[in-house]
Amino acid sequence: MTGSLAILAGRGAMPSALAEAYPQATCVTFEGVETPVPRVDAHHRFEAFGALLADLKARGVARLVLAGGVGRPPLDPGRFDPFMQALAPRLLSALQGGDDALVRLVISVFEEAGFAVVGAHELLPELTATPGLLAGSAPDEAAQADIARARAILAALSPLDVGQAAVVDTGIALGIETQQGTDAMLRFVAGASDTLRGTGGVLVKRPKLGQDLRVDMPAIGPETVRGAARAGLKGIAIAAGQVVLIERQALISAAEEAGLFLLAEAG
Amino acid sequence: MTGSLAILAGRGAMPSALAEAYPQATCVTFEGVETPVPRVDAHHRFEAFGALLADLKARGVARLVLAGGVGRPPLDPGRFDPFMQALAPRLLSALQGGDDALVRLVISVFEEAGFAVVGAHELLPELTATPGLLAGSAPDEAAQADIARARAILAALSPLDVGQAAVVDTGIALGIETQQGTDAMLRFVAGASDTLRGTGGVLVKRPKLGQDLRVDMPAIGPETVRGAARAGLKGIAIAAGQVVLIERQALISAAEEAGLFLLAEAG
Repeated sequence: MTGSLAILAGRGAMPSALAEAYPQATCVTFEGVETPVPRVDAHHRFEAFGALLADLKARGVARLVLAGGVGRPPLDPGRFDPFMQALAPRLLSALQGGDDALVRLVISVFEEAGFAVVGAHELLPELTATPGLLAGSAPDEAAQADIARARAILAALSPLDVGQAAVVDTGIALGIETQQGTDAMLRFVAGASDTLRGTGGVLVKRPKLGQDLRVDMPAIGPETVRGAARAGLKGIAIAAGQVVLIERQALISAAEEAGLFLLAEAG
Repeated sequence: MTGSLAILAGRGAMPSALAEAYPQATCVTFEGVETPVPRVDAHHRFEAFGALLADLKARGVARLVLAGGVGRPPLDPGRFDPFMQALAPRLLSALQGGDDALVRLVISVFEEAGFAVVGAHELLPELTATPGLLAGSAPDEAAQADIARARAILAALSPLDVGQAAVVDTGIALGIETQQGTDAMLRFVAGASDTLRGTGGVLVKRPKLGQDLRVDMPAIGPETVRGAARAGLKGIAIAAGQVVLIERQALISAAEEAGLFLLAEAG
């Protein structure tokens, strides 16, 4: 695949990791979206999606990567450009279709406009993990059971397009990720009463079953580990090859320092 | 069913509602469990469950109702009485079996000891709702779609013994109840960034599919309504006949004042 790359930058650590790895890439974002990317070449509005497509073409962009969540940006139909007006019926449908339906629509629109949409895992394959223990000691039996239960919860929610992360502590679910993201869920778990806590519990983070990894690729970073430690967890289990490790060395050091295991599971 | 009634009182508003409706009932609780019930006849320890059973028999108790969550009380095997020692294998299994597995075990143990365990909905049938709109205006199309999506999320989680409540705002899941309970989830939703919010969203609260209503009967009260209002929701949908309305008049008034709909759905 050749052609200039553009990063559609949203929240979280992924856009910066991509911008760093691809210094030639064009970085664009949307007004109202807070992105930590230090260099943004253009701010666009969702209401003027036609202008975004034209701008990307003018910049010679052929490949696009969507990086980081953009929440639900304000959409004022009165400001829709003709492109968005034509898209309105599909947009309405997507807005009711699940947490990622809007992103899937955006990918389709880019593809129909002739762009290739690639996944962050394709651009940064070295950022995911191979199966095995990356930090700490192997999970004990209780932690293994909690991992299995958290995975079952995520699997049950996958068809509904909800949840990439869950926390289970000694058999009891204490957190199921919603659109607020993993860090917010970990803060919620940290606030749970002691009477609800067992022997520690685990965070499991994985893509949804069957998820298109170009949509909201899951990622963890040092802040995830610190959040898990503050939530009193024993460790973190991720899907090998499907979860990006942001600042891998700092992440692993943070896990070792906090005494958390970090396990990448195949399958 | 005749015989003296005992209320096993945990957290939340349900124990007090039962204690008020059944002034002759014996109220017992466990050490370390905070219950708002004003009169508690005995505090027991989980580790001395045999003593609890003996005490209830000595008091002439024939029927029991479990009311309100008890979290996960500390269990010190070193303090187990002989009854608990014999129960240990089943207890270990229940502790890994899901959010309500421990309560189901407790019910079995009471029944094996000759007590009838009844549901709060049987003792307080007038506290549930018949199908229909209890407050506010009928949900609009977006709210109806959010109700359907929240119900689908709860249905998917039911086999895993997780979740009696969920919040969906304009197609996006913002809260899925875990063991911390509905009020904690509503506070979590209230903290969500504006960029994640749609046109308001709804709270759906229902028993799990196939749930034994003697286990953790769902309830809402005025505080639920206020929490939903603080979370910026449009309304609340409950299961008719299966969710207890605590302080019904205050609850309905709170919904009317906050401009929230309160809908009881059949089925």
